[in-house]
Order: sequence, then C-alpha cells, then structure tokens
Amino acid sequence: MLITAPLEAVPLVRRIAEHAYRAGASLVTPFYTDDAVTLARFRHAPDAAFDIAPTWLHEGMADAYRQGAARMAITGGNPVLLSHEDPDRVARASKAASLAGRPAMELITSFAVNWNIVACATPAWAEQVFPDEAPDRALERLWGAIFQASRVTADDPVANWSAHNATLHRRADWLNDRRFAALHFTGPGTDLTVGLADGHAWAGGSEPARNGIVCNPNIPTEEVFTTPHARRVEGVVRATKPLFHQGTLIDGIAVRFEGGRITEARATQGQAVLERILATDEGARRLGEVALVPHSSPISQTGVLFRNTLFDENAASHIALGQAYTKCMVETEGQTPEQLEARGANSSFIHIDWMIGSAEIDVTAISQDGDREPLMKHGEWVNTV
Amino acid sequence: MLITAPLEAVPLVRRIAEHAYRAGASLVTPFYTDDAVTLARFRHAPDAAFDIAPTWLHEGMADAYRQGAARMAITGGNPVLLSHEDPDRVARASKAASLAGRPAMELITSFAVNWNIVACATPAWAEQVFPDEAPDRALERLWGAIFQASRVTADDPVANWSAHNATLHRRADWLNDRRFAALHFTGPGTDLTVGLADGHAWAGGSEPARNGIVCNPNIPTEEVFTTPHARRVEGVVRATKPLFHQGTLIDGIAVRFEGGRITEARATQGQAVLERILATDEGARRLGEVALVPHSSPISQTGVLFRNTLFDENAASHIALGQAYTKCMVETEGQTPEQLEARGANSSFIHIDWMIGSAEIDVTAISQDGDREPLMKHGEWVNTV
Ligand SMILES: [Zn+2]
Ligand SMILES: [Zn+2]
Ligand SMILES: [Zn+2]
Ligand SMILES: [Zn+2]
Repeated sequence: MLITAPLEAVPLVRRIAEHAYRAGASLVTPFYTDDAVTLARFRHAPDAAFDIAPTWLHEGMADAYRQGAARMAITGGNPVLLSHEDPDRVARASKAASLAGRPAMELITSFAVNWNIVACATPAWAEQVFPDEAPDRALERLWGAIFQASRVTADDPVANWSAHNATLHRRADWLNDRRFAALHFTGPGTDLTVGLADGHAWAGGSEPARNGIVCNPNIPTEEVFTTPHARRVEGVVRATKPLFHQGTLIDGIAVRFEGGRITEARATQGQAVLERILATDEGARRLGEVALVPHSSPISQTGVLFRNTLFDENAASHIALGQAYTKCMVETEGQTPEQLEARGANSSFIHIDWMIGSAEIDVTAISQDGDREPLMKHGEWVNTV
Repeated sequence: MLITAPLEAVPLVRRIAEHAYRAGASLVTPFYTDDAVTLARFRHAPDAAFDIAPTWLHEGMADAYRQGAARMAITGGNPVLLSHEDPDRVARASKAASLAGRPAMELITSFAVNWNIVACATPAWAEQVFPDEAPDRALERLWGAIFQASRVTADDPVANWSAHNATLHRRADWLNDRRFAALHFTGPGTDLTVGLADGHAWAGGSEPARNGIVCNPNIPTEEVFTTPHARRVEGVVRATKPLFHQGTLIDGIAVRFEGGRITEARATQGQAVLERILATDEGARRLGEVALVPHSSPISQTGVLFRNTLFDENAASHIALGQAYTKCMVETEGQTPEQLEARGANSSFIHIDWMIGSAEIDVTAISQDGDREPLMKHGEWVNTV
C-alpha cells in the first residue's frame, strides 16, 4: 500500500498504517510532500528547473500499482501555496508533473488497483477556510467540516456509506437506462448544452477495482458523473464557486463553448493561470467530465467553501476540462484511443473539475429524440430513484 | 537531488533543500522514513510480509541516480528500534531490503553520482545516547557531539575539512605506496591477521564521483580503508564497541577466523541476531573491508558512544563483514566479479562495519616479503605522513 500525504498528516498516516497492517497489508510506504520544500523551489531554483518532474518517482509508483499496491492519497496542503509565484512557472511545473504522472494516473483511473482519496485538516488549509478563527479553532472547525461532509458523524458510518453508495448506484443505473443525448444547464450567467458521448456510462459511489476489491475512490463523494461529447458543447457557463488549482485561485470564471471548444474565457481573478491551463494542449479547452450533485448534499450543507477540489466538486454539479474517464464509456474493450475520441471522449494532460451547480441552477435532460425532461430544479433532483 | 531522512529531520531537510536550490539543483525530492510505521509493521503485519521490500522505490531511486540525481542520506533513527522484535523477522526484512536496494547501492558505492551521509539528532536517538538527561538536554548534547565529531565547531569548517581531506589522502597514498600484504591487530582478546586483497587500494576522505563532482561521502569520516583478502584472515578478534545494526544491539562480540571464514562467533548480547547475520549468505562470514582510525580522532575525543555506525565506525579501527568496495581495488576496469573474487574481494548482500580498535590495540604491517613494521601503537599512527 502506497500513501501520499502532506507532512502535517503524519499522525493520521500512522493510524492508517496500523489499521492497514492489521487488515493484512504486507508493506505500507508513506510518501510525504512538503509545501515548504515546494516553495523553496519556486523561490530559489534556476528557471530551467520548472520543466522537470521526478519521473523516477512517478514511474516507481506506477510499478508499485502494477505489482498490486493499493493507493491512498491524503489531500490537505495549502490551497493557495503558489498564488504569489510566477504563473508561467506554476503552469510549467504542473504540466511536467502531469506528464510524468500519466502512467500511474492511468492505472489508477482504470481501477487496476483499489484506491482512495481522503483529506487531513492542516493548519495552512484551515487558515484559508476559516481566516477569522484562531489557528487551533480553525483546525478544529475544519476537522468538524471534513467529518460532517464525509458522512462519518452518523451513528453507524459504515451502514450510512452502504446506503449512500446504493443511492448513487441507483441514480447512475437510472441515468444509464435513459441514455440521454444531452444536458441543458440554465441559471444566472449559464445557458449551456452539454452533449453526452456516444455510449457514455454514468458512474458514482463505490467501484470494484480490477483486483476484485470494492473501493470508494473519493471520500467524500456525492456525484454521479459521465463523459460529455468533446465536440458537442454549446453556450455560456459561469462558475458557481472559485477554483483552487495547483496552489492558485481562479475566481469568477465565465466561458463560452462553440462546437465543444472554449472560444472565450474570462476570470475576475487568476485570468493568467486560466489562460495557461487552456493552452496546455488541444484537449484542455474541451470537457472530459460532467457531474450532477444535488445542492442538498452534506457538503453544501456545511456552508463551507473548502478550497479543495475533493470537497468543493462534491458540493455542486460540475464539469471538468481535459481528460475523460474510460470507465465512463460502455464497450471500451479493445477500442483504440482514436475510436474512443470519435465517440466523443476527450484526451488531455489535464483534468480540472470546475463547479457550475447551485440552488439557482436547473438541469434539463434532452433525449436522443430531442424531447426535454426536467432533471434538476433549483439544484435538486426532480425525481427520486 | 534525492534526500532520505527520518521524519524528525524535516527542519534540517528544509534548510538543505533551500541551499541545494540556491546552488542550482533543479529538483530536491525528500523521502522520509518513519520509525512508528516500521514498528507498526513488526507489531501488526502478517508474517509473510517480512520477506517483502518496496522494490519499486529502490528501483526508482536507482533510476534517479542513473538520470544524474545526487544522493543525500540523513541518519538519525532510534538505534534500538527493533531490539524487542523477533530476530528472525528483523533479519528477513533486512535481507529483503538489502536485495531490493542492491542496484541503487551499487550506483552509490561506485560513485556514479556524488553522495553524502550526514546525521540529524532526533529525540529517540538522543535518549539512547544520553539516557540520564532530560529530553531537551539530551537532544542538545547530541547535536553538540555531532558538530564536534563532524569538525564543524572550528573557526573555518570548510578550510578544516580541506586540511582533513588532504591528511586522509596523504595517509591513503602512503599505504598504497607500501602495498602491504597483511595487517596484524593485537590487544586484549585480539590476535588477528588480516591479509589484504591482491591489488587492493586504500581510500579515505573526499572522492571524485564519475560525474566529476568531488564529494565527502561520509560526514564525519576519519578512516582510511581498503579491501581485505576474503580467504586470508586468521585468528581471534574481540569487538571494542557494541554494534547497533538495523535497530538491534549486538554487544561483546568475539569471533575466530580460519581461512578467512568465521568459524566461531559469540556475543554477550544479541547472539541470535549475530547468527542470523552470519547466515545471510556465504560472504556474510568473511570480510569486505578493513579500516584504520587513530584513537585520537575527534569522534573518540567526544567520549560518546553514538550507537550509530556513521559515528562509531569513525571512532575506531574496524572491519566489515560482507560486500567489498570495488573502488578499494586497483585495475578493476573490465574485470568480471569472478576475477575480482579470485583477487580476494568478498561478495555478499550485507556490509556491516564492526569496531575492533581502541587505545589498547596495536597494528603491525606485514610486507609482501614477510617483514614486520609497526603501523599503530596504542591506537595511534607510529609515523606521520
Ligand atoms: Zn467529478
Ligand atoms: Zn473530475
Ligand atoms: Zn569503514
Ligand atoms: Zn564500511
């Protein structure tokens, strides 16, 4: 088992390691990241450094997964660590890391092994979420919000998660039965039609990995999600929450799609970073995911902007720029990347989730025949499943 | 640059990383080990776990060195971490780790890249070295001893190290000129003749790596060392300091060599661990290194038993069980392992240094013609170079 975590998560990693060993793990290898060392690099390293990533480490991790290691990622670093650094260097470092990490990421997203992402409250993160609180109190409140959002405050969290997974599976099954052609999002600043890929598949909640182990890849998770058609997205959309990406903040995003491609993009904050993201590659201007989350999810109910994608994307319906998930397509066995692309699956080095849902957003489903059917009203599902 | 360190070394790693970036490093990747997670494994993992090592990580590190990464190892974990664990499991885990780490270790010991081992005082280590002191005071005293032993308390530590390296180089050059056939150690419980390998080479102090960078692989370092002949060691030897190996203590070691092979081995403490070490492979019963250190070295002068090989082996003349260093042989270019072995170079998965020098030990050199010449008296060099 391989655990990646911020240094501040040491006490949590130790407890997880003990439980993993008790559960039969033969070897738990924690790999810690350190925001201070990352910052030292941006402050002191030569400029050419920013096109370099630890390929040996990413390749090694991919080898670990090939040999059967489970993966746990603990998130919790400072969400705005790099907000004062040169956006060009941030983008180059991010691209180099994505490139180096691609083989490992493909093994993870294709569920070659069981995996999970959870969060650990850290002082730097808590300060960003609760800036008016004393450090101890901010940390305590962030832990409280994490526990509430993660559905672990109920009497029997395991039973609660079983029921929650069953609800998400029923919702995904229902959407898969209906095989809609497109989703139409409407609300303030948003009038967006997202075509769905040919043979798209909805997913959500726990998943069996190819090693037979059923895992909840994200905790928390509230979304059902699928693959949009990379060339069938039309209209305008305004983000409903700021986006915290690779230690930088992008706020007030508003974009226009034509033929699936972003043709206009504005942000009230972080415009330079947004433009660099869109320039990563051709697929960075197109969608790789669309996800539906009811506004009544426990994460929304915390009222907290977590400034961390794991939480914020599960508080609102969202779309993602970049790479599509193969598992969100049916009958992919033996298909070439070109065949998947012809069906609408996008391809990119990036995958960046970006919140477009709220209590003011309606979603209408459009059938293959062009019939319209209300799916979500004021951010809530119209029907129960 | 790749840094391995115990978690307690985070503040030191951050300072080293900053200086490495200022000096032009493009990427500093720290990898932390955690004694608590290691202990959790011994306490809770299934028995079969102990034959497994993180091969992916060791292979990845070897790749990093092949791609030119420098290596820094920071030592400082609890020297008796595993002293209450099952010696069989300790030995199996150690063997699995040595096996997995072999490609990386060969790149390091052959100086494919520049490398360095330094120490960081940690609470668990300090408690072992100064058990009667309060924790803060113990840590402070250990740092003081590390600085004194490492020759950094002088006015100009860099100039001090240049002079010290020059002294070690002159001593190694003098020994290489003389091309002795054997060394004879005598003292309480010791009457040991160590034959030297055919075409052995003495080394000590700074070394140029194959990338052209001159490095001090160990800080501190006080030894000049070479390759003994694996089949020409005769007599008895008694250890002058306890040995702390992989978190266990072996004290009161006394062994007999016949034809280079240990035929009798006793320890007043840790006998079971010693026996398992000797059973690792055929080469584990034979010598791979002999090193001369004057008793007046600053490390001896601290009067501290550091319980850490980096320090204790540099406080006294020593021998090492196991693998020989290729760089301690002349004309190795193009030679097969079999040819090196025929010349006397030992081969093993282990390399364990073990102190046999003190103020009571004399060393006599024996020339190729059988002439005897006093080399060290009461632990000090007889001649200056
Ligand atoms: Zn999503
Ligand atoms: Zn996503
Ligand atoms: Zn040595
Ligand atoms: Zn040695």
